[in-house]
Amino acid sequence: MNFHTRKWVRPEDLNANGTLFGGSLLRWIDDEAVVYAMIQLGNQRIVTKYISEINFRSSAVQGDIIEIGLKATHFGRTSITMSCRVRNIITSEPILTIDTIVFVGLDEFGRPKPHGFTDVTFDRDRFPEGLRNPGR
Amino acid sequence: MNFHTRKWVRPEDLNANGTLFGGSLLRWIDDEAVVYAMIQLGNQRIVTKYISEINFRSSAVQGDIIEIGLKATHFGRTSITMSCRVRNIITSEPILTIDTIVFVGLDEFGRPKPHGFTDVTFDRDRFPEGLRNPGR
Amino acid sequence: MNFHTRKWVRPEDLNANGTLFGGSLLRWIDDEAVVYAMIQLGNQRIVTKYISEINFRSSAVQGDIIEIGLKATHFGRTSITMSCRVRNIITSEPILTIDTIVFVGLDEFGRPKPHGFTDVTFDRDRFPEGLRNPGR
Amino acid sequence: MNFHTRKWVRPEDLNANGTLFGGSLLRWIDDEAVVYAMIQLGNQRIVTKYISEINFRSSAVQGDIIEIGLKATHFGRTSITMSCRVRNIITSEPILTIDTIVFVGLDEFGRPKPHGFTDVTFDRDRFPEGLRNPGR
Amino acid sequence: MNFHTRKWVRPEDLNANGTLFGGSLLRWIDDEAVVYAMIQLGNQRIVTKYISEINFRSSAVQGDIIEIGLKATHFGRTSITMSCRVRNIITSEPILTIDTIVFVGLDEFGRPKPHGFTDVTFDRDRFPEGLRNPGR
Amino acid sequence: MNFHTRKWVRPEDLNANGTLFGGSLLRWIDDEAVVYAMIQLGNQRIVTKYISEINFRSSAVQGDIIEIGLKATHFGRTSITMSCRVRNIITSEPILTIDTIVFVGLDEFGRPKPHGFTDVTFDRDRFPEGLRNPGR
Repeated sequence: MNFHTRKWVRPEDLNANGTLFGGSLLRWIDDEAVVYAMIQLGNQRIVTKYISEINFRSSAVQGDIIEIGLKATHFGRTSITMSCRVRNIITSEPILTIDTIVFVGLDEFGRPKPHGFTDVTFDRDRFPEGLRNPGR
Repeated sequence: MNFHTRKWVRPEDLNANGTLFGGSLLRWIDDEAVVYAMIQLGNQRIVTKYISEINFRSSAVQGDIIEIGLKATHFGRTSITMSCRVRNIITSEPILTIDTIVFVGLDEFGRPKPHGFTDVTFDRDRFPEGLRNPGR
Repeated sequence: MNFHTRKWVRPEDLNANGTLFGGSLLRWIDDEAVVYAMIQLGNQRIVTKYISEINFRSSAVQGDIIEIGLKATHFGRTSITMSCRVRNIITSEPILTIDTIVFVGLDEFGRPKPHGFTDVTFDRDRFPEGLRNPGR
Repeated sequence: MNFHTRKWVRPEDLNANGTLFGGSLLRWIDDEAVVYAMIQLGNQRIVTKYISEINFRSSAVQGDIIEIGLKATHFGRTSITMSCRVRNIITSEPILTIDTIVFVGLDEFGRPKPHGFTDVTFDRDRFPEGLRNPGR
Repeated sequence: MNFHTRKWVRPEDLNANGTLFGGSLLRWIDDEAVVYAMIQLGNQRIVTKYISEINFRSSAVQGDIIEIGLKATHFGRTSITMSCRVRNIITSEPILTIDTIVFVGLDEFGRPKPHGFTDVTFDRDRFPEGLRNPGR
Repeated sequence: MNFHTRKWVRPEDLNANGTLFGGSLLRWIDDEAVVYAMIQLGNQRIVTKYISEINFRSSAVQGDIIEIGLKATHFGRTSITMSCRVRNIITSEPILTIDTIVFVGLDEFGRPKPHGFTDVTFDRDRFPEGLRNPGR
């Protein structure tokens, strides 16, 4: 699992109990996961399709640093499935785990688009030539 | 089910497909649900504990108006369980349904706090006197 | 008067006195009122035309929950007039009252557009077929 | 009248008609006016008390630059009254005028605090020594 | 040097040390400087090209008011160069100085566009007629 | 150099030319760099001290994905120095390079605090026991 994004918990991310607000955390996860899906499918038109159950195991307080880990677990015909783990860097505690998040890549008309990939890339060669050309 | 909050979908809520970004929607739901839990439990110290699986059935485009409905389905000793439906006011389409969201009320030390309620209030008489006194 | 939107007062909504910042409150009201006008006029192109005087009677502190109430009071040829009351759910105190807010519905060229309505709807049948059609 | 703050109208400030959203504008005005009141009263604990009626005369589109002008018109015992004009720098059109905005300065207990000023300062010597001392 | 924009330091602008976060400050400066460049070049298509070294000399705490000063120092063929000073209004301390910020004006195809100006304007007569016409 | 944070360029990050706004980019960099400094110094009280000159070499458009790379280059007695590179994942173009960013770690009184580290950690064992203990 790759832990890429780290977030520093700021005052605006807290609930009235002084701990990390669930809604901020879900937004951070979706932000990060959708970018990961874009790179894996070489497509910027990505929509969230499904999120499996979410257990909030512990929280974080102001000033804590959390990191969000994602791992691709399955490539469908037009979709990518990944799992997610969030942990507190300072205390090492797990914050939450999501087994399954499914994103679908769309074509320019908003229809699911077959992507032809079956494994994870560590390069970024999946974006089509038209997008990769600096002269666009 | 009470549909309270309505949101107008603005440019900053869109993904690259021009449809409502999943992360914005989850944040709106949690924002709304936590306030509903505060009122039902008479407690501002509310944390998100569990969210069941989420199916994104359709989306919304810029300028659409969505509304978020919540219904309390169970009162535990320290928790409240609710279900959620989001729909597009203009097209009438369902956007997503979440069967179960669980919030827990905490005391001032961050421990789960028994609330003693077993049914939904339509008044706002659950906040303790100390908070209700304008002279605080 | 319908009280729809509830807001939980968060750290970023406070002024240096630790009370709800007037600018945040005015933005919340306009956000909510413009959506109400959209539904009543069946038109997403709504602009704020006039706001009558605003008395800030009391405020709210962090963690308070406020609710915003709106009532349509008049339908003009191209406009809708409403009144607004904001109150603190926890203390029951009124926060402010605005007697008159006027919104105008525009056509696609930005000109005032007659709407033909004279009373409040509780359905959402005022949006034209083109917008209501899921296949748009 | 001093025109200090200029704002560039960005996508997130637009309504569905593609013009400047009233709520964004009111928030900008209150942000700017409260800072002006802080400087004139030498007090950071400033609350908005009253805003007279607001006529939205014209609007602005994305990319326009607007400027917000404020002028102190009266010093009460604990308050300051100002007027406000907003105009579009590019088209020179007036956007709105507010005759009267009243702010009150508070003491550390949240009570109105006499300020002793009767005219506008162009220096910033009104903040008490304790705040001005870099060693605080 | 003209000091136009003033900012009140709010909770969301603070780092974990309780002082003004460097990233917020840099964003405020760029926001302000780009609007100043738009007015001086009569062009809304302005991009940041170069920023010289930045020394953070002191900071500010919550409730402080800072002001941002900008002065045009050079007009290139397609560019404008300015210097920037930020100071704390309350304590009079300098916060940072940037000797050189360069912006370039672009044409509708994103190419550098000669502007023909060699000195600072205090009027706003540099925007072309098409933009200045209220009937656009 | 480690490339951790990826950002998807959204409408609110664009200037009037439709390219990535410099101020958004600088804020993202400072956000990311300060978290990296926190982990390397085992200290949440981190302030930005110095940023060397910044050349904006190319930009990015809406929907592009950029990544931000950071490398620690020097450990001072109370400071950490790093360099930064930002590139466009899709086009592979470099967006900007900053040779030197200096952060200082502070103690609880806001004074520079010796940290005792001389090399980069890939573990997160630098936070003191008091912070690492989940029972805090």
